[in-house]
Amino acid sequence: MSSILGNNLKLSVWGESHGKAIGCTLDGLPSGLSLDLERISKDLDKRRGLKELSTARREKDQFEILSGYFNGHTTGTPLTFMIRNEDVDDKVYDDTKNILRPGHADYTAFLKYEGYQDYRGGGHFSGRITAPIVIAGSIAKQILEEKGIVIGSRIKEIHGIKDESKVEDYEKTIKDLNELDFPTLDSIKANEMKNEIIKAREQLDSVGGIVETYALVNDYVLGEPMFDSVESKISQYIFSVGGVKGISFGLGFDFASKRGSEVKDEYELVENKIVTKNNNNGGILGGITSLQPIVFDTVIKPTASIGQTQKTVDFKENKEVELSVKGRHDPCIVPKALQVINALTALALLDLLMEEYGRKNI
Amino acid sequence: MSSILGNNLKLSVWGESHGKAIGCTLDGLPSGLSLDLERISKDLDKRRGLKELSTARREKDQFEILSGYFNGHTTGTPLTFMIRNEDVDDKVYDDTKNILRPGHADYTAFLKYEGYQDYRGGGHFSGRITAPIVIAGSIAKQILEEKGIVIGSRIKEIHGIKDESKVEDYEKTIKDLNELDFPTLDSIKANEMKNEIIKAREQLDSVGGIVETYALVNDYVLGEPMFDSVESKISQYIFSVGGVKGISFGLGFDFASKRGSEVKDEYELVENKIVTKNNNNGGILGGITSLQPIVFDTVIKPTASIGQTQKTVDFKENKEVELSVKGRHDPCIVPKALQVINALTALALLDLLMEEYGRKNI
Amino acid sequence: MSSILGNNLKLSVWGESHGKAIGCTLDGLPSGLSLDLERISKDLDKRRGLKELSTARREKDQFEILSGYFNGHTTGTPLTFMIRNEDVDDKVYDDTKNILRPGHADYTAFLKYEGYQDYRGGGHFSGRITAPIVIAGSIAKQILEEKGIVIGSRIKEIHGIKDESKVEDYEKTIKDLNELDFPTLDSIKANEMKNEIIKAREQLDSVGGIVETYALVNDYVLGEPMFDSVESKISQYIFSVGGVKGISFGLGFDFASKRGSEVKDEYELVENKIVTKNNNNGGILGGITSLQPIVFDTVIKPTASIGQTQKTVDFKENKEVELSVKGRHDPCIVPKALQVINALTALALLDLLMEEYGRKNI
Amino acid sequence: MSSILGNNLKLSVWGESHGKAIGCTLDGLPSGLSLDLERISKDLDKRRGLKELSTARREKDQFEILSGYFNGHTTGTPLTFMIRNEDVDDKVYDDTKNILRPGHADYTAFLKYEGYQDYRGGGHFSGRITAPIVIAGSIAKQILEEKGIVIGSRIKEIHGIKDESKVEDYEKTIKDLNELDFPTLDSIKANEMKNEIIKAREQLDSVGGIVETYALVNDYVLGEPMFDSVESKISQYIFSVGGVKGISFGLGFDFASKRGSEVKDEYELVENKIVTKNNNNGGILGGITSLQPIVFDTVIKPTASIGQTQKTVDFKENKEVELSVKGRHDPCIVPKALQVINALTALALLDLLMEEYGRKNI
Repeated sequence: MSSILGNNLKLSVWGESHGKAIGCTLDGLPSGLSLDLERISKDLDKRRGLKELSTARREKDQFEILSGYFNGHTTGTPLTFMIRNEDVDDKVYDDTKNILRPGHADYTAFLKYEGYQDYRGGGHFSGRITAPIVIAGSIAKQILEEKGIVIGSRIKEIHGIKDESKVEDYEKTIKDLNELDFPTLDSIKANEMKNEIIKAREQLDSVGGIVETYALVNDYVLGEPMFDSVESKISQYIFSVGGVKGISFGLGFDFASKRGSEVKDEYELVENKIVTKNNNNGGILGGITSLQPIVFDTVIKPTASIGQTQKTVDFKENKEVELSVKGRHDPCIVPKALQVINALTALALLDLLMEEYGRKNI
Repeated sequence: MSSILGNNLKLSVWGESHGKAIGCTLDGLPSGLSLDLERISKDLDKRRGLKELSTARREKDQFEILSGYFNGHTTGTPLTFMIRNEDVDDKVYDDTKNILRPGHADYTAFLKYEGYQDYRGGGHFSGRITAPIVIAGSIAKQILEEKGIVIGSRIKEIHGIKDESKVEDYEKTIKDLNELDFPTLDSIKANEMKNEIIKAREQLDSVGGIVETYALVNDYVLGEPMFDSVESKISQYIFSVGGVKGISFGLGFDFASKRGSEVKDEYELVENKIVTKNNNNGGILGGITSLQPIVFDTVIKPTASIGQTQKTVDFKENKEVELSVKGRHDPCIVPKALQVINALTALALLDLLMEEYGRKNI
Repeated sequence: MSSILGNNLKLSVWGESHGKAIGCTLDGLPSGLSLDLERISKDLDKRRGLKELSTARREKDQFEILSGYFNGHTTGTPLTFMIRNEDVDDKVYDDTKNILRPGHADYTAFLKYEGYQDYRGGGHFSGRITAPIVIAGSIAKQILEEKGIVIGSRIKEIHGIKDESKVEDYEKTIKDLNELDFPTLDSIKANEMKNEIIKAREQLDSVGGIVETYALVNDYVLGEPMFDSVESKISQYIFSVGGVKGISFGLGFDFASKRGSEVKDEYELVENKIVTKNNNNGGILGGITSLQPIVFDTVIKPTASIGQTQKTVDFKENKEVELSVKGRHDPCIVPKALQVINALTALALLDLLMEEYGRKNI
Repeated sequence: MSSILGNNLKLSVWGESHGKAIGCTLDGLPSGLSLDLERISKDLDKRRGLKELSTARREKDQFEILSGYFNGHTTGTPLTFMIRNEDVDDKVYDDTKNILRPGHADYTAFLKYEGYQDYRGGGHFSGRITAPIVIAGSIAKQILEEKGIVIGSRIKEIHGIKDESKVEDYEKTIKDLNELDFPTLDSIKANEMKNEIIKAREQLDSVGGIVETYALVNDYVLGEPMFDSVESKISQYIFSVGGVKGISFGLGFDFASKRGSEVKDEYELVENKIVTKNNNNGGILGGITSLQPIVFDTVIKPTASIGQTQKTVDFKENKEVELSVKGRHDPCIVPKALQVINALTALALLDLLMEEYGRKNI
């Protein structure tokens, strides 16, 4: 069990890359929400990434609402979305179904499901399954924005190309980032990064990167001590995404080389409000938001599917073989993953918000 | 809500630094386990860290079993441990109770609990609350070891001093690390790190660091797709520890500067078994263990309590004040945190094991 | 939140009577199960009740599997079923949408969802939503039967007509009951009951009744002390069905007029096995199965929809009005409810089985 | 796993009848609650039942608060209570530890825990474990009463002696019942019932009965469709009590002999408010409170421990033996169980209240 999560707002995600459909159910939403369906479509489009950077499957994700939405509002009972898989050609998998793609879940799914897993395009482990997450996250963002809680992310690094710009005005930055299709702080760096991705594609290779995420929680105090700390919650949600290999908050791994005196978040009074000059802790102390911006980094590994020849094993014939992954895949999933990270952050924060403030009050 | 976690093995942790007692309840253990109580005591001792590196409260953690243990075996019903807080002098907190300690949960607890939190020594947010976690983890480790699943950690970095040794034989290394009271791979680096900690203490400062953890899962296939991925599970547990600011698996944040071709975990057949030469993915693919060693890093920030004067706010009088934290605190909690990380890793893996294999079979 | 349940096998149910579709997701099934889809269809047919007793909507419930089933086996990842609502005419509800049907959830749904609920045919509160439960239950029964665990129910009472037969051979009885479309122990009583239902229909009225359920757990010891007692679990599942107003185990409410000496379940040795001559406790002691048959009663109220004129309120115009429910409804839902009770019992027992024995072992 | 329950307010109950201590942890309470500790003691006293009706263990339940309470208020972090077991003489169990007491959990605990259960006085299955539940429930009642939600119960039947009085004014009745130590509506019937209990005791026998519970929810709309229906929730909590064998809402099992036209809850307008003249549905429709009083019955079986000789089995020596239960036990646990039912009802309703209205708002 695993594809259902949340305490007050439960998200159930289902489907496989090449099955009949993918979808999700959100259970626990308040009634009377008018959803911006256009916005959901836009968020889905963004998840498909930039056309020029991708050779991947490009089908339009047309969703259908199956339940929980009536006369233009949520009913308060389970809200279900479905996207039919249309651009599916499962013949292409017949030849390679016993050949483990390095770095993918092929081997572990084989071990766990003992050969019964849907191997076509990664099945339930495919990045395609993030489409319903983006739908759910789009709704969560709409609810949070009504409360003045906003979320945005930027690409901070692609294959060593780092955008080291600092954020001055978080609110404006988040707004701007959410309008970009390749969100960075520095547009020159954006071009360098894109070139790096194109170069990788040309060389039948792939690249990884880092996404930096910001969330402004307005006056809401979110998070619980211990196991529902904001860090615990966000990381549990985000590590659900294939390719994510690390998460850090505030200074993150840079804390390892620091002294306490260098990274202290001293308090001061500004216009009678308690604030910190610095935000080394990324807006979270003791697992609870400090009213400063939540800031965290997520690292995404280079796409495991590459065109270059790799050594692997045919587990049926039990022999070593060579594989060069054909077909549609992205040389860099960082821009797509960024959208999913935003979605999951919204879902995590909304669940924490409901825990404290109640369904009636959101 | 937050201090209860787990699906098949629930852990409930309670208590405050200067309250009457701290403790935990484990619900879901099988009956008939004979616990090594000596081992639990040893693990608790290790959690208290090295005497020479610490000026902190040093009370011996004498635990009492209140329920669930009968005639030397677990009964199968809730197992409860209690440690009385003895070395408590709560007078010392009266003067400073309205002064926010930078980097601690004082401010966020104040916001969340509206002034009703137990402010003495950090209350429920104190590192002291990790003692019951270590008890629970010690039991989890005992159960896992019976199944051939072992866990160990080393200090990889303290304030920029890095131990860059590589592990050759994971099983031996884990065994060795579990016998060291300052576990590193390189004993010379260990001394440098200790000196760094002592120096920080002398300068009324503190330092952070990185713990690297290894888990060998034997033949067990653990983890679920999506929200109960091994990464989701481990990170949810470990981010419950105050001071942890990042977690990464395998190459972690180094993936950001890599190409797919550089970090591929190609498969080969060795003695007819499918293995990978490299383990860049840290033993997890698609959220499920690949039978390779699980490897992950946890970064711990420098202790927020430092002797140096810091600027802060007295929130009662609403004025800026200066604070130099007196009393007992560690200049570096990395060695202690390492023990708690081992404990939480064991609890996370045991819960996943029970999910798949059942209580009857562990 | 509420339409998701289960610890090791999670069931998510969604949909409304007159929405686009109804469906469910089962998360946590083992991989490699070959489902008897014919059996699922038959169980769905049974849920529609006897044609001669019903004037209700009779659409065939054609289901589609959207995910989790590949090459004739479960994949181990979420299994999703959908049934399109076809026989839907939502115009008929326009006139009466503000008129509260007595005994239905109209008023409480209005209070809770503040007018945003889907009022057509009861929306998410409709009996129609039990169709996906029957699908999920059919699968659970298939898994349990492989382990020798069988479940069956009989109609024990309809509007005062009681079938007071006793079960001699539970295994045979369960088998027989599962083949009947109006399952009773005494076929003469069955006819009397049917006549009672027909009479009620003719008089524009409805009747209630009692279902008695049996479950044989083979050698499996199911249930936990306290909150996951077999009684807690079964009742939580079964009270999800609209119309269920009481559940009792073993002698149930007859215990109130008994002395301990009259209802003792004394132990004896039969062929060296510990058994009880009587089974007043309905196969459960301390929340755990005693290896005797689980026996429990469920009472179902008379259908709230009746043709006779009832007094009620138009909450929009805030005035008292009269209502006679037109359209399709059953004079007695007991035979349908029986199928749903079997399904929910199977789901409850399977979740308990997985808790103890693990997914790998079912 | 099983002794932890609740979604927003988690209750963890632990301990055995003759272990060191029993206790509970409540996780999820808001901070700043000032608890009436005197009230908790009184509720614990009531749980011990009437002295004249009982030969049972009579130790005073002195509780200690171990965590979560500071300066006279809840802190918002886990609140833990402990009661030491003092009046314990475990020698008496040595002779009979292999002899199954009919009607108790001895046999099922033996099956489940394979001989490792704490057999002394029923261990974790003892009625003694209800003391921490009463503590938790007392707190829940205090919170609910602040919101105008009140709960009370009466003894409706003891061994066939029925109190058939009807409630006129629920609010006054609940107030009165909560002040009685043997709560009935009719005090003459109360005496008859007491005599029945005394007679049973004299004849080394025991008797069962029915408790009727009322809850007024003020203007709060509680409960969810399906699996968190008020009925699902209350029954899951209450079936945790040993001896409870049935629960029914409103007319309950009487619905089986009724027609729809006889039991309809028609709506009318009284002072512009929508009400029902009758309340056959016990204040719940579609799983959600209808603002009418919640009314439900719980049946409790005669105490399994009786002084009369019973046939049973010594499972160690595998032979049939005779047993007459010596020592301390109640001839009727109905009056005690009533207090526990009130407690569990309060906990169930509070969890539902928090789900909808949030921790901040209770």
